[in-house]
Amino acid sequence: MNLEQNKGVPKPFSWAGRLSISFVAALLAVGFAGRYSAHAEEGMHPVSEIAALNLNEKGLEMDVEDVFNPDRVCLIDGICKVNGCTGSFVSGDGLIITNHHCAYRAIQSASTADNDLLENGFIAGNREEEIQAMGYTVRVTESFSDVSEAVLSVVDEGMSFIDRTNAIDRQRKEIEKAAEEENPGMRAEVAEMFIGKTYYLFLYTYLTDIRLVFAPPSSVGNFGGEVDNWEWPRHTGDFAFVRAYVAPDGSSADYSPDNVPYQPKRFIQVAPQGVNEGDFVMLLGYPGRTSRHKTASFLDYEENVRLPWVVDMYNWEIEALTEAGRIDREIELKHSSRIKGLANVEKRSRGQLKGLRSKRIAEMRAAAERELQSFIDSNPELKEQYGDVLSEIDAVYAEMTALAEYELNMNNLDACQLFRFAFTVYDAAVERQKEDLDRETAFMDRNWDQTTRRLMLAHQDLHLPTDQMIFMGMQQRILSAASLSRPEYDPSAVSVMELVTSTPAERIFNGSRLGEREILEQCLTATPAELEAMDDAAIQFAISLYPEFKRLRELNKERAGRLNQLYGDLITVKMEFMKTAFVPDANATLRLTFGSIKRFSPEDAVIKTPITTLGGVVAKTTGESPFVTPQRILDMHAAGDFGPYAHPEMNDVPTCILYDTDTTGGNSGSPILNGRGELVGVNFDRAFEATINDFAWNHDYSRSLGVDVRYVLWITDKVYGASHLIEEMGISRE
Amino acid sequence: MNLEQNKGVPKPFSWAGRLSISFVAALLAVGFAGRYSAHAEEGMHPVSEIAALNLNEKGLEMDVEDVFNPDRVCLIDGICKVNGCTGSFVSGDGLIITNHHCAYRAIQSASTADNDLLENGFIAGNREEEIQAMGYTVRVTESFSDVSEAVLSVVDEGMSFIDRTNAIDRQRKEIEKAAEEENPGMRAEVAEMFIGKTYYLFLYTYLTDIRLVFAPPSSVGNFGGEVDNWEWPRHTGDFAFVRAYVAPDGSSADYSPDNVPYQPKRFIQVAPQGVNEGDFVMLLGYPGRTSRHKTASFLDYEENVRLPWVVDMYNWEIEALTEAGRIDREIELKHSSRIKGLANVEKRSRGQLKGLRSKRIAEMRAAAERELQSFIDSNPELKEQYGDVLSEIDAVYAEMTALAEYELNMNNLDACQLFRFAFTVYDAAVERQKEDLDRETAFMDRNWDQTTRRLMLAHQDLHLPTDQMIFMGMQQRILSAASLSRPEYDPSAVSVMELVTSTPAERIFNGSRLGEREILEQCLTATPAELEAMDDAAIQFAISLYPEFKRLRELNKERAGRLNQLYGDLITVKMEFMKTAFVPDANATLRLTFGSIKRFSPEDAVIKTPITTLGGVVAKTTGESPFVTPQRILDMHAAGDFGPYAHPEMNDVPTCILYDTDTTGGNSGSPILNGRGELVGVNFDRAFEATINDFAWNHDYSRSLGVDVRYVLWITDKVYGASHLIEEMGISRE
Repeated sequence: MNLEQNKGVPKPFSWAGRLSISFVAALLAVGFAGRYSAHAEEGMHPVSEIAALNLNEKGLEMDVEDVFNPDRVCLIDGICKVNGCTGSFVSGDGLIITNHHCAYRAIQSASTADNDLLENGFIAGNREEEIQAMGYTVRVTESFSDVSEAVLSVVDEGMSFIDRTNAIDRQRKEIEKAAEEENPGMRAEVAEMFIGKTYYLFLYTYLTDIRLVFAPPSSVGNFGGEVDNWEWPRHTGDFAFVRAYVAPDGSSADYSPDNVPYQPKRFIQVAPQGVNEGDFVMLLGYPGRTSRHKTASFLDYEENVRLPWVVDMYNWEIEALTEAGRIDREIELKHSSRIKGLANVEKRSRGQLKGLRSKRIAEMRAAAERELQSFIDSNPELKEQYGDVLSEIDAVYAEMTALAEYELNMNNLDACQLFRFAFTVYDAAVERQKEDLDRETAFMDRNWDQTTRRLMLAHQDLHLPTDQMIFMGMQQRILSAASLSRPEYDPSAVSVMELVTSTPAERIFNGSRLGEREILEQCLTATPAELEAMDDAAIQFAISLYPEFKRLRELNKERAGRLNQLYGDLITVKMEFMKTAFVPDANATLRLTFGSIKRFSPEDAVIKTPITTLGGVVAKTTGESPFVTPQRILDMHAAGDFGPYAHPEMNDVPTCILYDTDTTGGNSGSPILNGRGELVGVNFDRAFEATINDFAWNHDYSRSLGVDVRYVLWITDKVYGASHLIEEMGISRE
Repeated sequence: MNLEQNKGVPKPFSWAGRLSISFVAALLAVGFAGRYSAHAEEGMHPVSEIAALNLNEKGLEMDVEDVFNPDRVCLIDGICKVNGCTGSFVSGDGLIITNHHCAYRAIQSASTADNDLLENGFIAGNREEEIQAMGYTVRVTESFSDVSEAVLSVVDEGMSFIDRTNAIDRQRKEIEKAAEEENPGMRAEVAEMFIGKTYYLFLYTYLTDIRLVFAPPSSVGNFGGEVDNWEWPRHTGDFAFVRAYVAPDGSSADYSPDNVPYQPKRFIQVAPQGVNEGDFVMLLGYPGRTSRHKTASFLDYEENVRLPWVVDMYNWEIEALTEAGRIDREIELKHSSRIKGLANVEKRSRGQLKGLRSKRIAEMRAAAERELQSFIDSNPELKEQYGDVLSEIDAVYAEMTALAEYELNMNNLDACQLFRFAFTVYDAAVERQKEDLDRETAFMDRNWDQTTRRLMLAHQDLHLPTDQMIFMGMQQRILSAASLSRPEYDPSAVSVMELVTSTPAERIFNGSRLGEREILEQCLTATPAELEAMDDAAIQFAISLYPEFKRLRELNKERAGRLNQLYGDLITVKMEFMKTAFVPDANATLRLTFGSIKRFSPEDAVIKTPITTLGGVVAKTTGESPFVTPQRILDMHAAGDFGPYAHPEMNDVPTCILYDTDTTGGNSGSPILNGRGELVGVNFDRAFEATINDFAWNHDYSRSLGVDVRYVLWITDKVYGASHLIEEMGISRE
């Protein structure tokens, strides 16, 4: 990004605009612009900033302007967001490669015990055979711009924290709504870059007719399952192909047999030759959330309160859902996607806990904060303005810690789906009485369609006997939790806990018809008065808890308001102290990260090398889940039938690759690109040690991993014979 | 070993004698003597054979004759057997270094909840403070000779299998008894080298006054516990020092305060500089048992029957004992040694199961046997003599497989200690009515002392409530096992199972006084009639089962007889087929193995390097068992206070080392010797992948591991200040 070039060209809804100006200005202001490249490997860089990274010195072989340029078609136009994941367009006809685990929900929805696509995999022999990916959307970033001033213009000094939150929220919604009205068919989102400080408006092309094209069987796409999840070495073929469709006129449209493939502005070329150890790679994608700018008190809360609670709670929930699925495959299928999600978070949380403890992240951050505090205290002006920032942030987490057991349990009551449905319909009815901009985000008109769609999709997986067990388990947890009458607790909390634990589960479950699809659908259009008049035990139960949940919601907003203002101040004074700029925490907007294919030593006397092989798949295969491998693959490996996809020196098909880029959740499905911007793999996970990436990045342990393009192509082409996809991607198979 | 030198010098009870002649003769006979060194790394070589190994070409820097020479004092005189482990004399005053886990039982016996040596460690500041190692014996190999002809002279063609077994047994006992009479104070043992083929008489100096000198706390000596057991990388300071004492006249004697330190003929020099990756090492020791010459049908039995049973049974037993120990530390201490033993075998069995399956050992052996069978069948003479050998061996294992569930459960009934005591006293009474040589080995006069000592030691750890639970668990296992009336079962088996499962545990436990030490002691001298007349429910129960156990014992002897003859034939024809000689399976006699300090790759994309560090101990330390580290060690590590014991390049104290020698259980405590025969570490385990060593050795996965001498000395000298031991070992601390 050349500063001069853009200075005089403010383009509110095109690439870059004021965002990069403000960023680079910040860098110049503190006089340490050069620092950025010195720490090049850490950072999920906003694409507008990559010109400053000297990528050509690091191994990029293409013009940086071909990666990102606000004024013309470039590499980032080939990247999209697939629900919460990332995808790459790999053909001019809207073919997208992403992870098997990102397409999992679509594969599950289309599976029945008789036609089990999860187990058997799926190949559409032609476009007519492609099947609807229920609930999937694809977004393509079209532009962004800095709207910090507009957002913060509504804040004034004397505001209460809750008013501050509400004012910012409402202003964000207003900007989004205006942007969507100005850009019909597009989706607008105001993202917070630095908490309480900087906000950008992103505009997305928004596609809703997504279809499943190719998925390997779970034995390939989920090989190793939860045992190998978050681990390296890995041997999972975690990829799938989907395709985006639009109306014949090219506009975004819901599913229709008349729709036609979407034509992306640009697609990513697949490079079948893959990579070697030491090669430069970069990833583009939509990393979800990191917490590198948060305080030691936040890390303490995570380490000692929230993460242990998650591990304990999710383990129990996974066990209950798994146990129920042992009865028959239909129930198992219903629960499979949810279990996968829970298990993923549970193991990541364990990794984070381990890392936080062994690497003493909180301790180190506390030490850094003590230095910052001394710096502040040594300057009377700073002390006046920022002297209490850290202690005030700490006070928020202290309050959250004191109330954690109650709040975490209550907020998880919707693990019971029937309660979730009952609460949501009442909440929606109440909120939708309000003016659009005053509603909770999920119930605004622009989001209502997606909210109901997700609810109905969840309803499809409802299994009432399991759900009742989950509810009873939650009652038990609340009962066996600490005293119901801790002095910190609000009286309403105590009475709600008594109500929840004393209401017989059978009464709620036997007395409700929300398990029937039509009833739930009807309730979604009812008014609060209509629901209150209904003789439905689950709805009545939700209504009786509603005031307390509303109180908790306000409490959270009040805390968010405090943190929002305090973190804004913290970042400001920290920048002054450290004389450097920071890369903003991940927030599900488009970022670039780079590094190289790299081994690591996660523990004393252990070295993990960065390319695994099909031979490793065979060696791990026990014949028992999750280490089952299709016989055809075993036979082809034994016969050395690798086609053009073998690594020349390894004499085997590379399976997965490891690299030292900086990623987090949401980078699932990100293309792993070589120096020429060609796809050499698909990112899908991090090493166990790298789960604490979310709190602190470190070159020694931060490693991401993905499926090697050679395995993708070998599976697609040689094993399952989908050669039409190889041709569509324009890969020559000499 | 020079063949000419010894030919005319038969020395029945000195080193070598006919043993090595017969071995070398076998090698020459098949014309492939050279093969031995080609496969040098596999093999637990009888010391008499090492001259043929060309050790000087492999890295040995001393004269092979200084390692072993039957005619003069040599390196092997510094090696001893400590109960089932190996030890090295490391001073002229009988100081022995072995493993912490080998001294564990002694440390446990001396521990109470108030004076917990397991937890705190133990240092004798001087010889007076050394404490008795209850139940410990030390043996030093003095000589051996081939007695195959004498043993097999009692076998004749027409004998039944049971008669054959009994005849060989009796003859072995006779030879042992005669040898001990000829060599007062020594211990004699006839060891079977190749099943049914070759037998050697070993003579041992036998020391029974053993004392504990130094043991680090379990947090060091058992760091990593069962989690790290059988794993590499390892960070365990698994060493301890004991000392052997004799009567003032130098003769072997039981404990007495008047005893004096034993003076070994030679001791092993400790080399404080340690080793580096790639360095030559060799181990001397007493490996217990391997099965490399057994058939695929034996491996099938292990893989599909016995090992899964062991894993299942032991897991349950460990859980029951552990649970009971949670009540108080006294009970925990009582059970600790037993749990450690069970857990060790359980995890080894899991490793073996995994290895047998993933490396397809049985399948490969079956393929080799098919080739052997073709070879036999192609030669009418061989076919006549050996045509059915393999199928007859297979028939034995088929029978064992059919009856396994019953037999394994019954033979494990003595997991209940009260039953074990009751059964043993009655068995002893019956057996000790017989002439000495006709008795079961444990009840012969020469073994009676040790048998009773062991029983009383076990009695010391008896905790009746736990024991009753174990009994009830065994009843449950038998009940829930396959049908009580399988057609293969003998009617007596069925009625015994009915008896065992229908006898109320309380009746046995409430009606027995064997829990009282004096009663058990009295019973050990009672006659069968006296016991039969006793109104003790446990003894009556044992008596009622006695006929069936006797039947099972006979059945086992009959099988052993068949296998004994069949394996003898198999080895003969296999040698003819393969035109090579073999190294005999381990049998707890003195062996040498050699290799080098070596990394390995146990799985795709993982390399494990061969030297761990104190930094790794610190990194593994969580503060929760088994990963607790004494604060003093953490502090000294933080301060870099390594004394002269740091590795110069690593700038840290090496903790454990990995090498590719060929070892098994019994090699615990073996000295790791450098090319000059100096001690650079103490062997204590194998890598998980190497547990299948017992069935098949392979250079890729067979790795042994030990504690590095630098860690031993740093802990002993710097951390716990036992500098008097450093001086006694003659180590200069510049």
